[in-house]
Amino acid sequence: MIVLGIDPGLAATGYGVVAQRDGRLLALDGGVIGTPAAAAPAARLATIHARIEGLLAEHDPVALALEALYFGQNVRTAFAVGQARGVALLAAGTRAIACVDYTPQQVKSAVCGSGRAGKGQVQEMVQRLLALPEPPRPDHAADALAVAICHLNHAPLRERVPA
Amino acid sequence: MIVLGIDPGLAATGYGVVAQRDGRLLALDGGVIGTPAAAAPAARLATIHARIEGLLAEHDPVALALEALYFGQNVRTAFAVGQARGVALLAAGTRAIACVDYTPQQVKSAVCGSGRAGKGQVQEMVQRLLALPEPPRPDHAADALAVAICHLNHAPLRERVPA
Repeated sequence: MIVLGIDPGLAATGYGVVAQRDGRLLALDGGVIGTPAAAAPAARLATIHARIEGLLAEHDPVALALEALYFGQNVRTAFAVGQARGVALLAAGTRAIACVDYTPQQVKSAVCGSGRAGKGQVQEMVQRLLALPEPPRPDHAADALAVAICHLNHAPLRERVPA
Repeated sequence: MIVLGIDPGLAATGYGVVAQRDGRLLALDGGVIGTPAAAAPAARLATIHARIEGLLAEHDPVALALEALYFGQNVRTAFAVGQARGVALLAAGTRAIACVDYTPQQVKSAVCGSGRAGKGQVQEMVQRLLALPEPPRPDHAADALAVAICHLNHAPLRERVPA
């Protein structure tokens, strides 16, 4: 079972591809899709969309997992993040791949066992759970891997308890 | 010169296609792309994206004009609108069609001559400028036609004064 985690942003969209095999987690890919501030928003969104389409085609995940951030942001940021989020959802929707939102607390709980864990703890636990040689960087990539892990933890329960 | 105006929203995206021929404005198309609340956001965004792609293919506009609404909205609304906006920009970006933002004040000024005009005045002036038999409805369609008119008013100046 493979999951693509996405941490959307216009300037930097983090992505992380995590597989669960025989009960073990494995990082297949991870990084950041960066777009230049000087480019037009439409061109930046086209880059993000194309890269996510590429990741979906390459890894064929069963789901796209995203962190839902409704609060703690100003309206301008929410607008920009919403745009990047929109093209990520679109890429998945076009291929009929399920998109699932998790709150920051759900992600932290799944990875660290506490909804109040700090960024450093999340990075450390992502490293440990995926048996990476070093903590995943930058933050956006670590966050994307974390939300993918969160979905893999929740997925068995989701399957047992139909919505 | 043909311009596609878009008033993005997840539940209802207004669109208006306006042509300028021999100094006269002409409404070629206008309406609302509605999506059901029961559908998954990714599917709703796919509908909006496909419909806008269809409008671009049919009318081949020189530009996509959008109202930029950064304030007076809460973060949750900004997120939802941002997502719809993202797929609209993407559709234009993929075809290398310029996307231009206008503030609500710019749109009202262009259509009514005053940045403080009310919704009713905007509808009435859009009807008059496009010589429509009745005021354009619903609001989202009227707003989309208004922003397209706004772009047509600004475009000659933009061309004379390179950015």
